[in-house]
Parts: sequence; C-alpha cells; structure tokens
Amino acid sequence: MQADTVRQSVVLRRRPSGEPDRSDFDIIEDAIPTPAPGEVVTRTIWLSIDPYMRGRLREQQTYAKAIEIGEVMTGETVGEVIASADPTLAVGDIVVGARGWQSHVLSKAAQLTKVDKAGAPISTYLGVLGMPGTTAYTGVTDILKPKAGETVVVSAASGAVGSVAGQLAKRAGARVVGVAGGADKCFYVQDSLAFDDCVDHRAMDLRAELAAACPNGIDCYFENVGGAVQAAAFDLLNPFARVAMCGMVSQYNQDPFPPGPNLGFVVGKRVLIQGFIVSDKPDRMAEWRKLAAPWVADGSLIYREDEIDGLENAPDALGGILGGRNFGKLLVRVGPDPH
Amino acid sequence: MQADTVRQSVVLRRRPSGEPDRSDFDIIEDAIPTPAPGEVVTRTIWLSIDPYMRGRLREQQTYAKAIEIGEVMTGETVGEVIASADPTLAVGDIVVGARGWQSHVLSKAAQLTKVDKAGAPISTYLGVLGMPGTTAYTGVTDILKPKAGETVVVSAASGAVGSVAGQLAKRAGARVVGVAGGADKCFYVQDSLAFDDCVDHRAMDLRAELAAACPNGIDCYFENVGGAVQAAAFDLLNPFARVAMCGMVSQYNQDPFPPGPNLGFVVGKRVLIQGFIVSDKPDRMAEWRKLAAPWVADGSLIYREDEIDGLENAPDALGGILGGRNFGKLLVRVGPDPH
Repeated sequence: MQADTVRQSVVLRRRPSGEPDRSDFDIIEDAIPTPAPGEVVTRTIWLSIDPYMRGRLREQQTYAKAIEIGEVMTGETVGEVIASADPTLAVGDIVVGARGWQSHVLSKAAQLTKVDKAGAPISTYLGVLGMPGTTAYTGVTDILKPKAGETVVVSAASGAVGSVAGQLAKRAGARVVGVAGGADKCFYVQDSLAFDDCVDHRAMDLRAELAAACPNGIDCYFENVGGAVQAAAFDLLNPFARVAMCGMVSQYNQDPFPPGPNLGFVVGKRVLIQGFIVSDKPDRMAEWRKLAAPWVADGSLIYREDEIDGLENAPDALGGILGGRNFGKLLVRVGPDPH
Repeated sequence: MQADTVRQSVVLRRRPSGEPDRSDFDIIEDAIPTPAPGEVVTRTIWLSIDPYMRGRLREQQTYAKAIEIGEVMTGETVGEVIASADPTLAVGDIVVGARGWQSHVLSKAAQLTKVDKAGAPISTYLGVLGMPGTTAYTGVTDILKPKAGETVVVSAASGAVGSVAGQLAKRAGARVVGVAGGADKCFYVQDSLAFDDCVDHRAMDLRAELAAACPNGIDCYFENVGGAVQAAAFDLLNPFARVAMCGMVSQYNQDPFPPGPNLGFVVGKRVLIQGFIVSDKPDRMAEWRKLAAPWVADGSLIYREDEIDGLENAPDALGGILGGRNFGKLLVRVGPDPH
C-alpha cells in the first residue's frame, strides 16, 4: 500500500500513434493536496477505462477538450473521502465523479455524488449503474425505441454499454442479436445475457452470418464499433430503421479515418441515424440508477467486470479496451475496496 | 395535335447503364381506353420529370416496385378529364395524380385530385404546389427545424425541391446558403430566390468555398445530391446539426455506388441524419397546398419551370435532370394547356 503522503498521477507524455500504451504516459508523484473550502480529497478505489478516452488524446476534438502533454489523464473514479472542507461530505464517504488517473483526487464537493455503501457494489457506479449503463439506457430509450418483435442488433455486445443496451431491448420484447469478438464473448452474450443470437465479428463472412441471424432484417442498430460490423448491419437495415450512434471503437486508433458506407440507402429506407453523448442529458444518470438498481439487486440485469490491478497499468488497459482484449466493464483497482 | 383515338405510351425497352436516354425506351401506340365504372380517362397536359424516376429503372428497389421491361414508365401528370364513369369527376375537370408517361391515362377516380382551374397555374401542382414543394416542406418542417440565425445549406438549390426548402428556411429566419451548378443557377438562387449566398459545386475547391460561405458552420443540411457536395457539407456540420436526406442525385447513374463519408463525426457532434419520402405522410400535400397557394398567388414564393415539348422527349429530359441540365422544375408539355 502506498504511503499516505504521496500522490501518483498518470500524465500524457506524447500523443499516441495507433494503440496507446505505457510508453505514451509518465507517472509523476507529488504530495497529496489539502482541500480548500468547498473541496474534498478522495483516495481512488476504482478507475474506469472507457473507449472514449482515446479521442481525448487526439489533438483535434469534436465535443471535449484534448488532454494536453503533461496533463493528468481524465477518467471517472469511485473513491473514499479522506479529507473534506465541505459540510456535505465526510471522511469515509464513498463518492463517484472525481476525474483523473490519480491515486488521490482533489475535487469540488459539488462535482461528486455520494453513493450508498450498503447498496450495489461500489464498482457498479462506473459500469452498469454509471456512465456506460446510462449511455445504453439513453440510446435505447431515446433513439432506438424498439418495439416487441423487432430485430435489434448491438455491436460490442459483451461490453459495458452493449450488454445493457441488449438487455433493455430484450425487456422491450425485441429479438436481440449481439456482435462480439470471439467464441467466449459470444457464448457469454447468448448464455448469460440471454440475447437471442450472437455473431462473431471475426467470422469469415460477417455479413452472411449477420443476415442468417437476422432473417427479418434489422430494425434497430446500436452502434459501438463502426468498420466492417457497421457495413454489415447497415446493409441489412429495414425501412424506418433507427441507428443509435454511440461510438466507433474499431477506428479510434486510425488516422485518417477510413471511408464510410454510401448513404443512398438512408433516403429510400427512411433510416434515422442519430449520434449522442450521454452527458448531454445529465438527469438521465439518476433516472437510470433508480430504474436499474433493483434489477442489479435482484440479479435480473446481468453485468460483468474485468479488473486490472494498479494505476501504473491503466495505460495498457486503455490499449486493451481499444483492441477488444477486455471482457466486460474494464476497471483499474487503484486502492483497496473494503465494501 | 394527335388523333383523338390513339394513345401514345413510353415503355421501358432495357435497363439503362449510366444516364438514360431515348434508346432505353420505346414509344408504343394503342387505342385510348374506355373507363369502367369508377374510372376516368384523362388527356395528359403536363408530365413531371423527377430524379427519383432513375431509381425505378434499377432492378433492385428499396421502397417502390421497379418498372419492368415493356411496362409504361411512371410519372405524375396534370390532365383534363375526357371521359368519366365516376360521378365525382366530369369531362373538362383538371386533375393531378394520374401516373404514366402517356398521352392519355386510365385511372381510378379515387386516385385523382381535382384542382381549381381558376387558381394557380395548373403546372404548379407538379412543382411548387405538388410533390417537390411538399417534399421541401416536409424535410424542413419535420427534420431540419431551422431556428432563426442558424445556417442552412441546401444542395440543388435552384431545383424544384431545393428552391422551396431554402425559401422556407429563410422564412424561419435562418441564414441560407445554396449549392448549385454554374453561374446562372447561382445568380438565380441569390438574386431571385434571395438566399444569402450560393456556392457553385463546380468550384475548384468546393469545401473552401462552402466554408467561406458558412463562417459559423452548418446547422441544417438539406441533401439532394450526395457526392462531393455531401462530403463538403458534412465536414462543416456543427454539433447537434440536422441532415434531411431527400436524395443523392449525383450518384443515381452510378453502379455500384461510391463509398461515403466516415460517420465518426455523427457521434461526437450528435448529428441527426434522417431519410424521408414525401409519400409516407399523404396528408402533407393538402396541408402544404393550403399554406403555399397564397404565397404563390402573391408572388412571395418564387418558382421557376423548365419546359420540354412532346412526350417523345421525356426520356432525354430524364437524362437531363440527372445531369443537372434543367434549370427549374422540369415539365414535359404533352398536350395543350388552355388554362
């Protein structure tokens, strides 16, 4: 266990070319800060690793500021308050919302959400009950709106977002087909998540296998990956299909991006393609937590976590999630979790 | 003037490769039919030529049945009733809705709409007050929803759809930029239609010219053409931009279709891309006619017609509209218009 006076931070050394790894980052040490009025310091227990982080390492940004060279890498954490200068939070409280690849994070109290230590496992506030779960909920509820009997395809189906998106579509009565990488993930998607079918995106003829799994075409597509999976899914879209554009992780390491599908089909089939970012609707996370917490408690909402130990391994973990080497919600265990 | 007992029809001889012309069609003659109960026969006055017709000549269809070899080519007409076996229509009535590249069309009376001979010029029911105008109205109203001060880009801006779409966006208080082919059309778009700017898509650096015309980026894009114009417009879309996908005429003669834009930007910018077909909302045409007829009457809704004489020239007219050689709503004058 690290000394209680030293803080470790992962900072960007250089902009990665292709898949990021530890050589693109430095680990620096300084003193654990002291909170000013309205602030608290947390020790990080869990750090979330998410595909969007790759975008923050690019110079050119679309919706958020790039991480600068020498700046601490961003990321959501669950932590324990170890020093508080705000009346709303006490030492020992567990909070979510502190951002940074750091052993200890200084935050304004107003940016943090206190979570119930006696409720769901605290790591779930970074996954099934956190940003990824809320992302799935928003995309399915606001864009896909699957109807009973419709066919819904979810890419990256075993992942933190896809696994929830597919389960929500199942609850709506849809036939749900996952796309995932490899036999283990496909087995999990069908056996544990109870999707109706799952196609391995490494298949020799992905389009033919997806077509076979979707004999009535595709009414809704939850897009997490782009590339060949997108091309295959777009080919099979039915008239009036909806596409929730959540991410295109297959190309996050590519520069420049490859050409996309010809969009002529969008006209004739009246397809809706809608990009979205979960943080645009900040009220949705609380709404989702209220809805889903009972499902986590009764075991009816299935989730899976993939843990990596040690803050120093966070850079390789980011490389791993972009390469699909994680299996479930990827978390870095930064400090002990007594809960 | 043709004999009153003979009907001429344009039928498909073979599926065109590239731009269609008269060698792809035959003109056949038969007797003018006699209406059965519930039917009427019209003599065609105006035949509408529209880009969507090229799609009907392809074997593979998305939303409508292909024209078969030997079948009469489809197309909306304005005609005069010359024989009626239905109490709702009388000889001499002017009707819109009869479909076919024919000098005389046999229709069920219920498929036809009688128009007011004393109102707007009857040719406008195929253009500004017809399907193209309603298409513009639907796309702008239901998908783009431009707000005052936003930038709206309209491709094929001098055409039957684009000219109305841009004028509607102007009425909503938006800054409207057209894209059209050549100096004459661009002058018309700025001078007569009063768009704020117009970019010639034949410019050496289309993207740079469009960027210069849209210093605040693009909030709404009304897509009629695809190809290089689409790529330039997509590059300049702002966060939360809306794209009404009405058509992609630049590629209708191509087989296979070229690759499209990479869609990664849709996620980060939360772009909405929505395809639509005007006939999905059949009530909208009457709604639009009621709204727009006074604007046509008072001269505040500008439109332009491009007339070709003679049914036998309809195939070349279709080639011309796909090549952008028309200037305004393209109509074939099939018979005399006394109104």
